[in-house]
Amino acid sequence: MSLFTILDLLGTSAFAISGALSAMNRKLDLFGIFIIAFVTAIGGGTIRDILVGNTPVSWMQDTTNMFLIGSITIAAIIFRNKINYLKKSLFLFDTIGLGICTIIGVETGISASLDPIICITLGTMTGCFGGVIRDILCNEIPVIFRKEIYATASLAGGTCFMILYYFNLGENLVYISTAALIILIRLLVVKYKVSLPLFTIHNKGH
Amino acid sequence: MSLFTILDLLGTSAFAISGALSAMNRKLDLFGIFIIAFVTAIGGGTIRDILVGNTPVSWMQDTTNMFLIGSITIAAIIFRNKINYLKKSLFLFDTIGLGICTIIGVETGISASLDPIICITLGTMTGCFGGVIRDILCNEIPVIFRKEIYATASLAGGTCFMILYYFNLGENLVYISTAALIILIRLLVVKYKVSLPLFTIHNKGH
Amino acid sequence: MSLFTILDLLGTSAFAISGALSAMNRKLDLFGIFIIAFVTAIGGGTIRDILVGNTPVSWMQDTTNMFLIGSITIAAIIFRNKINYLKKSLFLFDTIGLGICTIIGVETGISASLDPIICITLGTMTGCFGGVIRDILCNEIPVIFRKEIYATASLAGGTCFMILYYFNLGENLVYISTAALIILIRLLVVKYKVSLPLFTIHNKGH
Repeated sequence: MSLFTILDLLGTSAFAISGALSAMNRKLDLFGIFIIAFVTAIGGGTIRDILVGNTPVSWMQDTTNMFLIGSITIAAIIFRNKINYLKKSLFLFDTIGLGICTIIGVETGISASLDPIICITLGTMTGCFGGVIRDILCNEIPVIFRKEIYATASLAGGTCFMILYYFNLGENLVYISTAALIILIRLLVVKYKVSLPLFTIHNKGH
Repeated sequence: MSLFTILDLLGTSAFAISGALSAMNRKLDLFGIFIIAFVTAIGGGTIRDILVGNTPVSWMQDTTNMFLIGSITIAAIIFRNKINYLKKSLFLFDTIGLGICTIIGVETGISASLDPIICITLGTMTGCFGGVIRDILCNEIPVIFRKEIYATASLAGGTCFMILYYFNLGENLVYISTAALIILIRLLVVKYKVSLPLFTIHNKGH
Repeated sequence: MSLFTILDLLGTSAFAISGALSAMNRKLDLFGIFIIAFVTAIGGGTIRDILVGNTPVSWMQDTTNMFLIGSITIAAIIFRNKINYLKKSLFLFDTIGLGICTIIGVETGISASLDPIICITLGTMTGCFGGVIRDILCNEIPVIFRKEIYATASLAGGTCFMILYYFNLGENLVYISTAALIILIRLLVVKYKVSLPLFTIHNKGH
């Protein structure tokens, strides 16, 4: 099992846990918890596959993810009151997930011979849209539109990937640099409480 | 016209009525009522076709459904104040719809040579996701995540289908047993007011 | 550059501005503004491509749209307090966008040899669903379900297109008549404050 696969599974697990916690906080029932965990973990990849036309989508072709997400969700339910102590590790896993999913998305775009700008977009969508679907299903404005430099880290990572890829550096170096950049940005952003600017409209004269 | 087709049309109609009632309760306009009726009736099948890659999706290839949904919605608008007296029949039609859509979803998965677990998932999505899209469009947390053993009946039916299919029983027997199981579970659940457990998080120390 | 292309770019721009304004009104951050502008502008076409099976979807195959939407959004942010003075031109652009997107949607259906009814539906979805996704992401019941004769104009235009197309009139004539009809309906509707009927349910006896 390669380092990449291990990180991928870690990322999927972190996304599943974040979905399960979201669902329990909103008092959804057992089925709701599983569904939200599932879509958070595989939603971004599903949208990526549908947009590019890779069907049946990838989680349909390999059941490893389903079993992993199922087990992780059961664990999250059992240990739901202990997970709060793990918030730092969760944040790290979630960030790893973001990094890995961004990389997989960019690579999917490259395989489909799409324009670099589109590849980066695809990477960001793969990384972020699981969380967007989670928030829509839970009837909230997606958190990434409001207060987190989350997508921005993914965009920066995707751009870094494309540049290094263009200079034909080794695959592992590209992977590690991209993931490291995304993780670094998120850690710095949280440490220094950076956020994106808001632009308010002055509705005078109405 | 086979029994299967008749049940399919009954199920589609029940889903359309449930969507139209939802839309009228939220005071949507005429167009909103038609759209919500339409997506409730064909949303699950559309997601199924998109995930598997069966495009153009099935309602685009056969207009019977569109005419049926249109007529049923007009009828639902005209008789909107009488439908409350029909709530029991509606519940039954809706359950038949759930059963039939689950079966069609599982079969789509089998035709695409997908793993049994994926086939069952596909069946449940086909049966339930029309209602999920209806609730999202109406700006509510999907009801199936909150208080109904609806998806669970579909999951149980899908599992039953796969087991009987594996033992190579006749097609009609498989269909009838699956549909009967789903209907039975829903009736029992409503009669005895069973619901899935909730798991609350104790946010102490925050 | 043909008249059609110019109108298409105008329509995309108007949709992007309407998305950016929506996002700023809801106090989303910079990333949120870009995403909402983007999905409003290309959401309808993306759903059209996915349903018909035209993948990778069209905005992935031509980056013109992405650069246009990006620039327009930056402009909308800079001039956000001046745009209110432009509301009439915005309304006109938005209506042009609706007309053009409806035509492109109907044509996509014809190329895929779909039934006329389905072609009209596809045109309406292409014209309207960008706004639907915008409203869902902003956590609101889509405005077109509630108070605007917006989709109805698109439906009427699509029907007009199919009839003229059936009589084999020249392409330009079909385009111009359809777009003119849609724009005319919207202008009249707004001028005379027409709206679709509501159907209320009397929940007596509950």
